[in-house]
Amino acid sequence: MIQLHCFGESGNAYKAALPLALSGLDWEPVKVDFFNGATRTPDYAALNIMGEAPVLVDGDTVLTQSGVIQMYISEKTGKFGGSTPAEVREVLRWVFWDNHKMSSQCGMQRFLMNFLPEDKRPKEVIAFNAGRLTAAYKTLNTALAGRDWLVGDSVTNADFSCCGYLFYPEPFGFVRGDWPEIDRWLSNIEALDGWQHPYDLMPGRPSDRGL
Amino acid sequence: MIQLHCFGESGNAYKAALPLALSGLDWEPVKVDFFNGATRTPDYAALNIMGEAPVLVDGDTVLTQSGVIQMYISEKTGKFGGSTPAEVREVLRWVFWDNHKMSSQCGMQRFLMNFLPEDKRPKEVIAFNAGRLTAAYKTLNTALAGRDWLVGDSVTNADFSCCGYLFYPEPFGFVRGDWPEIDRWLSNIEALDGWQHPYDLMPGRPSDRGL
Repeated sequence: MIQLHCFGESGNAYKAALPLALSGLDWEPVKVDFFNGATRTPDYAALNIMGEAPVLVDGDTVLTQSGVIQMYISEKTGKFGGSTPAEVREVLRWVFWDNHKMSSQCGMQRFLMNFLPEDKRPKEVIAFNAGRLTAAYKTLNTALAGRDWLVGDSVTNADFSCCGYLFYPEPFGFVRGDWPEIDRWLSNIEALDGWQHPYDLMPGRPSDRGL
Repeated sequence: MIQLHCFGESGNAYKAALPLALSGLDWEPVKVDFFNGATRTPDYAALNIMGEAPVLVDGDTVLTQSGVIQMYISEKTGKFGGSTPAEVREVLRWVFWDNHKMSSQCGMQRFLMNFLPEDKRPKEVIAFNAGRLTAAYKTLNTALAGRDWLVGDSVTNADFSCCGYLFYPEPFGFVRGDWPEIDRWLSNIEALDGWQHPYDLMPGRPSDRGL
């Protein structure tokens, strides 16, 4: 059975867990105890030198980076990767953009604003990130105008990647109602058969840590 | 002829220009006048809704995101993409990691430390980025120990992606001599037949703007 090393708070892990859940593949989550330093142990470094979640283990195949895991799921199932060479490239374009401009910022911003002690939150950094994130939300909202999905006529890895952090309830500057096209598109994702919220799909949530 | 919309200061554009230069494909750079706002014009938005360079135009095919352009070059030439399915995934793993953890930070840090007026440089943001970048350099340096290239036995898109900002002379906290494995690997890249520095390969450099 495929194992996904992940934890509920990780939107990057959700980008892999959600297509797994919707793919029909047989898989199980393995909790990474990130907040107790699990990704900084020698054992974890042996699994992933990058020290990050998610990690997918399928027999002898060990994959890291959510974008690579998504492509692997698409190879195995024929789903979510785009149906023409042009669509495949367009899907990857959004997955790269998300990694470069959106998830990388969302994840950091949510961590700084929620998971650091209040007296250790760097105000200038948070304000700076907020400006960059607003630009990213604007790009995504504009791209979704008149479309149900980012690429083609059905859900793809582009959608799974870009939505990675957008279902979380903790405040990090994303207000769904401010972005009507993103809001509509997130509703489309929530309506997919088998969709689950990250805190239901993966083990671990802030309330486990008294937050 | 393939056109690459790019500018010398962009390490993200270099990640596409360098494999083009080494691929044997017929191509030419088209200067994006980034520092005079070219990427914020309606014309540029029509070319790339993400408002970023590089953009590759090959007849009717228009591609953005350096990772996608690299894959396109690999499809056309059979070069730089990895020679087995496992290598292909490993190459992409590093390209995604670079987009998420390294280039996205390097590019921003270099901009803040060099291309903003001195009185507008956000000190707390720069210090914060420096910590994140040191972690990224450490991961890369560790991965390169005992290896000439990040993946397999020859240069791939993984190398082109991760080196994107590391040849630039402007200070952004990367000191080549501090990272012996990275230093050796950058020398391997510089020794490739046809290698060119980003300021020689693409139009535009800081001295054009009096910097």
